[in-house]
Amino acid sequence: MRVLLAGGAGYVGTHTAIALIEAGHEPVLLDDLSNTSAVVTERIAEITGTSIPLVTGDAADDEVVEGAFDEHGPFEAIIHFAALKAVGESVQKPLEYYANNLDTTYALLRVGLARGITSFVFSSTGTVYSDPADLPFTEDATRNLVELSNPYSKSKLMNEVALTDVQKANPELNVTLLRYFNPVGAHESGLVGEDPKGIPNNLMPFVARVAVGKLPEIGIFGDDYDTPDGTGQRDYIHVVDLAEGHVKALEKAQPGLASYNLGTGNPVSVLELVASFEKAAGKDLPKSIKPRREGDLAATYCTPAKAERELGWKATRTIDDMTRDVWNWQQKNPGGYEG
Amino acid sequence: MRVLLAGGAGYVGTHTAIALIEAGHEPVLLDDLSNTSAVVTERIAEITGTSIPLVTGDAADDEVVEGAFDEHGPFEAIIHFAALKAVGESVQKPLEYYANNLDTTYALLRVGLARGITSFVFSSTGTVYSDPADLPFTEDATRNLVELSNPYSKSKLMNEVALTDVQKANPELNVTLLRYFNPVGAHESGLVGEDPKGIPNNLMPFVARVAVGKLPEIGIFGDDYDTPDGTGQRDYIHVVDLAEGHVKALEKAQPGLASYNLGTGNPVSVLELVASFEKAAGKDLPKSIKPRREGDLAATYCTPAKAERELGWKATRTIDDMTRDVWNWQQKNPGGYEG
Repeated sequence: MRVLLAGGAGYVGTHTAIALIEAGHEPVLLDDLSNTSAVVTERIAEITGTSIPLVTGDAADDEVVEGAFDEHGPFEAIIHFAALKAVGESVQKPLEYYANNLDTTYALLRVGLARGITSFVFSSTGTVYSDPADLPFTEDATRNLVELSNPYSKSKLMNEVALTDVQKANPELNVTLLRYFNPVGAHESGLVGEDPKGIPNNLMPFVARVAVGKLPEIGIFGDDYDTPDGTGQRDYIHVVDLAEGHVKALEKAQPGLASYNLGTGNPVSVLELVASFEKAAGKDLPKSIKPRREGDLAATYCTPAKAERELGWKATRTIDDMTRDVWNWQQKNPGGYEG
Repeated sequence: MRVLLAGGAGYVGTHTAIALIEAGHEPVLLDDLSNTSAVVTERIAEITGTSIPLVTGDAADDEVVEGAFDEHGPFEAIIHFAALKAVGESVQKPLEYYANNLDTTYALLRVGLARGITSFVFSSTGTVYSDPADLPFTEDATRNLVELSNPYSKSKLMNEVALTDVQKANPELNVTLLRYFNPVGAHESGLVGEDPKGIPNNLMPFVARVAVGKLPEIGIFGDDYDTPDGTGQRDYIHVVDLAEGHVKALEKAQPGLASYNLGTGNPVSVLELVASFEKAAGKDLPKSIKPRREGDLAATYCTPAKAERELGWKATRTIDDMTRDVWNWQQKNPGGYEG
């Protein structure tokens, strides 16, 4: 299957490209490189032995998407990873987040539908769920736009709703919404991994940078939550498991709409993640307790049973696998792709 | 106050332009004329004695909006009426509806914020509410994106949410969300009114076209609802009352977010509206009962108390005023502006 990966040079896109190649498919990357590097194509080639094309440009621009189809198509499917994704920044710059995260979807759909794609896979997020009463989240948990805490999550839910309506109006199209929980980890080779620009927004890359001495200490936002150790619990998922979920979703795609939670179903606390990382790195890491952040839930985790039942997919990698692979990646690439 | 009216040559925009001129303000129209006619500027001049500019172009195009500011600004405020608004069509063409109805907002905000507007008034809709348990709808009634029945209404709620976040990030900005119930009626002069292209989507213009013999009969979708006469009840509001609501909202605008229901608070049934129109026209109109339409609620009506309390605004025109003015407009303009 020939597949266009919009935002495909990013963290999840890169690992998905590798998984697609390994499963015999032909991914093509489209990315504006605003939060990643063209170096990823060399790394993908080193891992897989296969060189894949990278089109550099904005997935919100119809002409750019048309150019990708002209040059490298036809594509049977589009996987749409392209998004601004920093939760805190989204509160400061809501207009940029809404415009970018929705306009990319429109352009990819306009061109994709005109060019006859059969499947559109969308990178959504477990943060479309926000009601703790629904834990563990199934795919039918409440998705309440006006209750979500930030424009990033809201833009993802808006995309889900728009895609659902577009699918209804195009009954032959497959639309698959993949709700990621907390992707962490890196390819076991240590050649590709998460490389956020600036100060990382998420816990795992932050911990990794503390471990290599690039940041002074880990901030733990709240230790008085109603959880076993008082720190927030999340459903961390190894990015290679997540990537394999995309391959399964694509291979099982049927006309219609489908949504899947991609997580492990196991809540892991901040302290547990840090302890696992310390074990992997063989050293204690500086950390301190900070006040809770507005909008953070005590715990979020899913039931991934639907993906196992319908896609035959299940995350197999543990939190220790995740921290080991991040530590490996971070040590081999202390300054990221371009460091 | 100098005000840019995006979509200002449309039905509500035209009447609002007149009300603004009468209150001493200076409206400028920006419209792509996709669902109206440039003739409206002549009619506005005939009614008010004032010629106002019309910029022809797409409000989703930053360059067009910048051009309007360059040529006719600076503007203190933008009123954003520009939208695709046919509920049924929105189900068939969701991508066009989401892209158009959101991209116009982004472009108007990007340019407006860069040029220092102090107020942004948004044409929203009472259809952002969908839970009959909340009747009569206050501004705090449930707005549940995934429960709304069509992309038009969803695009309006998405806009509300995006605007709310943009206001939070720009605390000096006023954002006013005006939730229209069912605008009908026409200016009492009969010079301006509702002129939908093709077969009207809404009841009142449909009835008017039956009354002038341009359509064969009125379809009444369901007569077995749990309402006094079995037909659906709506909160019809005279467009001149609605236009005056915009003037009040603009004049009272303060930094912050505000939302107001603009309706009468009086539910009127389909049969009551038709009977009022028959009285105005002095003749019986052909009509027949059809099956219910999917997504229609039995009744929707609001509490307009907040607008009265905070804006000093209250609708004063009755259903008989509405049907009389529509009949007057339709007789004087049986083929619309360009007929």
